[in-house]
Amino acid sequence: MSLTENELLELLKLPTGNICDANDKCGNMDPAIKPVDPKTKMAGPAYTVRCQPGDNITIHKAIYEAPKGSVLVVDAHSYIGAGPFGEIMAIASQKRGLAGLVIDGACRDASEIEELGFPVFSRAINPGGTVKESVGETDLVIQCGGVVVRPGDIVVGDRDGVVVIPREKARTVLEKAKAIADREAQVTEMLLQGKTILEIYQFEKLKG
Amino acid sequence: MSLTENELLELLKLPTGNICDANDKCGNMDPAIKPVDPKTKMAGPAYTVRCQPGDNITIHKAIYEAPKGSVLVVDAHSYIGAGPFGEIMAIASQKRGLAGLVIDGACRDASEIEELGFPVFSRAINPGGTVKESVGETDLVIQCGGVVVRPGDIVVGDRDGVVVIPREKARTVLEKAKAIADREAQVTEMLLQGKTILEIYQFEKLKG
Amino acid sequence: MSLTENELLELLKLPTGNICDANDKCGNMDPAIKPVDPKTKMAGPAYTVRCQPGDNITIHKAIYEAPKGSVLVVDAHSYIGAGPFGEIMAIASQKRGLAGLVIDGACRDASEIEELGFPVFSRAINPGGTVKESVGETDLVIQCGGVVVRPGDIVVGDRDGVVVIPREKARTVLEKAKAIADREAQVTEMLLQGKTILEIYQFEKLKG
Amino acid sequence: MSLTENELLELLKLPTGNICDANDKCGNMDPAIKPVDPKTKMAGPAYTVRCQPGDNITIHKAIYEAPKGSVLVVDAHSYIGAGPFGEIMAIASQKRGLAGLVIDGACRDASEIEELGFPVFSRAINPGGTVKESVGETDLVIQCGGVVVRPGDIVVGDRDGVVVIPREKARTVLEKAKAIADREAQVTEMLLQGKTILEIYQFEKLKG
Amino acid sequence: MSLTENELLELLKLPTGNICDANDKCGNMDPAIKPVDPKTKMAGPAYTVRCQPGDNITIHKAIYEAPKGSVLVVDAHSYIGAGPFGEIMAIASQKRGLAGLVIDGACRDASEIEELGFPVFSRAINPGGTVKESVGETDLVIQCGGVVVRPGDIVVGDRDGVVVIPREKARTVLEKAKAIADREAQVTEMLLQGKTILEIYQFEKLKG
Amino acid sequence: MSLTENELLELLKLPTGNICDANDKCGNMDPAIKPVDPKTKMAGPAYTVRCQPGDNITIHKAIYEAPKGSVLVVDAHSYIGAGPFGEIMAIASQKRGLAGLVIDGACRDASEIEELGFPVFSRAINPGGTVKESVGETDLVIQCGGVVVRPGDIVVGDRDGVVVIPREKARTVLEKAKAIADREAQVTEMLLQGKTILEIYQFEKLKG
Repeated sequence: MSLTENELLELLKLPTGNICDANDKCGNMDPAIKPVDPKTKMAGPAYTVRCQPGDNITIHKAIYEAPKGSVLVVDAHSYIGAGPFGEIMAIASQKRGLAGLVIDGACRDASEIEELGFPVFSRAINPGGTVKESVGETDLVIQCGGVVVRPGDIVVGDRDGVVVIPREKARTVLEKAKAIADREAQVTEMLLQGKTILEIYQFEKLKG
Repeated sequence: MSLTENELLELLKLPTGNICDANDKCGNMDPAIKPVDPKTKMAGPAYTVRCQPGDNITIHKAIYEAPKGSVLVVDAHSYIGAGPFGEIMAIASQKRGLAGLVIDGACRDASEIEELGFPVFSRAINPGGTVKESVGETDLVIQCGGVVVRPGDIVVGDRDGVVVIPREKARTVLEKAKAIADREAQVTEMLLQGKTILEIYQFEKLKG
Repeated sequence: MSLTENELLELLKLPTGNICDANDKCGNMDPAIKPVDPKTKMAGPAYTVRCQPGDNITIHKAIYEAPKGSVLVVDAHSYIGAGPFGEIMAIASQKRGLAGLVIDGACRDASEIEELGFPVFSRAINPGGTVKESVGETDLVIQCGGVVVRPGDIVVGDRDGVVVIPREKARTVLEKAKAIADREAQVTEMLLQGKTILEIYQFEKLKG
Repeated sequence: MSLTENELLELLKLPTGNICDANDKCGNMDPAIKPVDPKTKMAGPAYTVRCQPGDNITIHKAIYEAPKGSVLVVDAHSYIGAGPFGEIMAIASQKRGLAGLVIDGACRDASEIEELGFPVFSRAINPGGTVKESVGETDLVIQCGGVVVRPGDIVVGDRDGVVVIPREKARTVLEKAKAIADREAQVTEMLLQGKTILEIYQFEKLKG
Repeated sequence: MSLTENELLELLKLPTGNICDANDKCGNMDPAIKPVDPKTKMAGPAYTVRCQPGDNITIHKAIYEAPKGSVLVVDAHSYIGAGPFGEIMAIASQKRGLAGLVIDGACRDASEIEELGFPVFSRAINPGGTVKESVGETDLVIQCGGVVVRPGDIVVGDRDGVVVIPREKARTVLEKAKAIADREAQVTEMLLQGKTILEIYQFEKLKG
Repeated sequence: MSLTENELLELLKLPTGNICDANDKCGNMDPAIKPVDPKTKMAGPAYTVRCQPGDNITIHKAIYEAPKGSVLVVDAHSYIGAGPFGEIMAIASQKRGLAGLVIDGACRDASEIEELGFPVFSRAINPGGTVKESVGETDLVIQCGGVVVRPGDIVVGDRDGVVVIPREKARTVLEKAKAIADREAQVTEMLLQGKTILEIYQFEKLKG
């Protein structure tokens, strides 16, 4: 039950905050994983990678395995002492039609990546070089940024961070997120008209 | 002995570096607490909050308790796994006339907050959702970013970070900070005219 | 075997990623050490400093000892609780013709430093004040950001971070980095023409 | 395909290092998660819990849901500002016949837990109190210490840390780990007889 | 309203977990601050110190200012690159009749401190040397380990960590902590007799 | 100017605190690098290693290159997601007559290492498996735990941590450290006789 292209476009218009709330308040990655360019937005099904720290050969492999529209999600063991993803790979990923990349690790060539407009989320930026020795695994269940990611789960990223939606709940989460966004627009309207949050939400806990 | 509105405006024109020096070189928070928008500036008396990690009900409460012009200072136990302050609350805070918010924790809706122009300083940005269950405390002595904050202490924030001035010293610190800024303008002038820092400051320690 | 001014200009045109690769994939600092202004670029021989945490007198001294064109590299023991380098010192450094500063510690006056256009790389930004008591050492072998730095080693910084090239290998590294950049331009060209990385690099490891 | 009691006893006799190697060199948690008592050993199928940070009601619930012999694996969002597991709960867990507990968070009552002999692995020890408000989820796929844990996966812990074996590979991993341990005993024997590791392993990479 | 010697002895018999619960679940320090010797227990009124990082002259001063029975609580700005408290100072502290020391920073001479039996809680152990230049402040409100500490607040430490009780609530907290400990003894008894926590606590939240 | 065996034995009797003071208060590693067994003591000339994170082949090589009596000092890029040194390698190191190992990374088989009595200092303990692919460098200037280490520098470790003495200053530092230890014994004697530190040290800074 993957999302259609139109549904992914709808997701892209919603803030990750609303999406996370709709997703049972789960699936948000460690906030150390941030977009290279804060104006970045991306959404797509995960294609997962687990590689040795400081070794990027598996990412090269995954770029050519992942279906068009995928977000590569790479567990590089939180190692930030080198940058296994850079300009060349960003160009290759764009050529392949990938939707973006999240790495629990570092990237490099931040300026070039920003100029290309390819969405990259990483734990750090590091010009450090990597080796190409140990071929890791792709298309498996991994953790990335403290979140479980399965192939095909929907990955959404914006300035606030990255949220992972279980594939089987993706459509439901999209609908709930739209409803939350609508409700928030109403709440905003009411606030601007002079109502208070306390009146609007009627918090039980704050009453006598 | 709170500051007048004019005095707060004077504080806003001074860099936090000068203010911190005038404040016995103290009161600067952990530098992990940063403005959402680096162009942000804010100054005002603290209204303090201590809440359970991952629970934002107490912040909702505080928005409506804090006097106009206050800076909300929230001890969220340094928890950054969720973002208990976002767009809706920023709008409500603006409506209430609050001067800004500092949270030892995370916020979300960074782009929206930046667009609103409401000053927010946080340890991280995280789209993660929060619960609204445990009502914490407000208007008490707390720590935030490794600094003791008492209700009414003056909180100043700019791109460099956040500095807390004990309320009873606020006027003295303002005067000292202005004097330091004046002195630094003179030093800058002398540097541009070709003098060296060593000549200007005559460091005892650097002499034979 | 220091680099000529022309060679330093050539280095400035290369991304630190290529330089690091040419430098035996070494010399890249901890990615927590970042430019105050992401548009910053700098290159020059290191003039090294080791100072007590929270004490900036040795940096003042070094500004006037370092040869024109130097990059000050300061081991402040990774202490980020105060900002021992700010606007006044940036102006003094510019007046002295220094090429930039890297500090394993914090700086302050970020906005002013950005406006001056003086390249500063630091672990954090903190308005906290420092003392001027303990005179440390200059012109010695230090570590900074997890990298060994000797006086005269070539220090290059850009948005991706800081790389240190051993002085005796500087010319070789420059030549190799240029060759790598040329090769990467060719690879980019081939990618744009439709070739894949796998075809271009013919990874042995990815073959059956 | 769960392991029998005898197989679990066999696992307990093997160091987690050998088990991890047999487990495709995967499944080892963040080393910040350590045993309260370094003499601790435990092995059993996971019963998983995800709870709000600083709230332990879900752990109470899980103690009574988990099958006898289970290891409770708790994702408390890495929050270490309070200790949601302590003496009372350790006694209850022992009474229920649980095999141990791993928490991506903190515990308290370390001395009492050590005296009881109940195996507890945690990211920290903190006497801080928790609330009992938000009921989280149990018996679901979680992350703990940067590792994906599914209900029924086999969790093994000793002084070196915690390793998680996918349930469907558990028997194979046990067999491989025993083979590795046997091989290591032979290698040890050869080393003591004067052979070198280089001779024994004949590293291809170290040859010309 | 300081505690009597007998009351301090009563506190020493209670686990810090119970004390923290009685203290409105507050006052527990960052768990990185740990006893040098896990068998350590201490309780006494705080005598507070704020010193420059890497400089221990203020601690020397405080040892001779603090009243007999005090716990020295030192804000060393979380700096752990040197150890400003060691064997000589532990002997001096014992001679002066101090009850212990907590430092938001490092200590050294861990083996000697353990042998002396003087209670020391620190963020790290580091043999690094300190200077004796900048005299800081004593007997003021500080933060230590993320907790506000005022002179005379009661500081309790055991293996689980350090808890700070506001001086004016100390007697009440002691009484509540004893009641909690009594209640926990009853709960333990009930658990051993076969009751479950769910029966004993009758959690509202866990009911339909 | 290496130290004789007798001189190394003298170093072993001195606390690292005294040695660090004698070493210009420098050379102490990041306190996260701790002995596996707190009773450990070691001293010897450094044999240095730089290896890829998560890859231990270079350590195997170094064990057989290092001269008898050496301390292996390994820069594993602070990566603690796997344990590249364990029991087999400890046995091999003992067989080769090495004095100990320091790794800016993790080790495993902590219990076995403790039983063997081979001194190991590491940033973490992790059962995670490593690969044997990328041969790194040995016998070069490295950083380890934030300290520059050159081949032949003297490395001393005890419960407090690790200190590195530049080889050319080793004899002088030993003499100074012995003098400091003698002086401290006198100070201890004076303290026990009732003198105060303030009388003994006559701190200028604490006067008037």
